[in-house]
Amino acid sequence: MSLFNFFNKRVVGNTAPAARERLQVLLAHERAEIGQSDLVAVLREEILAVIARHVPINRDKVKVKMGRGEQISTLEVDIELPQPAGLATAH
Amino acid sequence: MSLFNFFNKRVVGNTAPAARERLQVLLAHERAEIGQSDLVAVLREEILAVIARHVPINRDKVKVKMGRGEQISTLEVDIELPQPAGLATAH
Repeated sequence: MSLFNFFNKRVVGNTAPAARERLQVLLAHERAEIGQSDLVAVLREEILAVIARHVPINRDKVKVKMGRGEQISTLEVDIELPQPAGLATAH
Repeated sequence: MSLFNFFNKRVVGNTAPAARERLQVLLAHERAEIGQSDLVAVLREEILAVIARHVPINRDKVKVKMGRGEQISTLEVDIELPQPAGLATAH
């Protein structure tokens, strides 16, 4: 399975999200050799930490899914961001 | 356009990659209000720096694409990783 098949499969299973502020991160690591270290697992916490430095993240609003196949490791992070102060009622 | 439409569109335009070690990062930021700061642009360099701390990245082998729509900002990073020492001829 290629990286692109993975992303395609993820997409098809989802319905259109409501209009809200959100951030989505998809990572895929395709190894040439089976059994190497899992780069995606290593990067997971550090990328979440980078994001948390820039936007307030409510841990209840973060969905993380990891997948680990023989050749492809994947990470999907879906973060619903709080409305910036003053904008929530600005319509 | 939703996040999922964006990812779907990206995927369709690509052909299956050859078997090699690579890392792909897709980021999408969907803003509830137009004109807010561009989170994806802010995260771009820091996420690349996180990756570079864990794997040797050859700058010639990194493809970065940014997109900026009215409501969705996107980042696509495709990194071809060097074969770990000793594995390249291990078949």
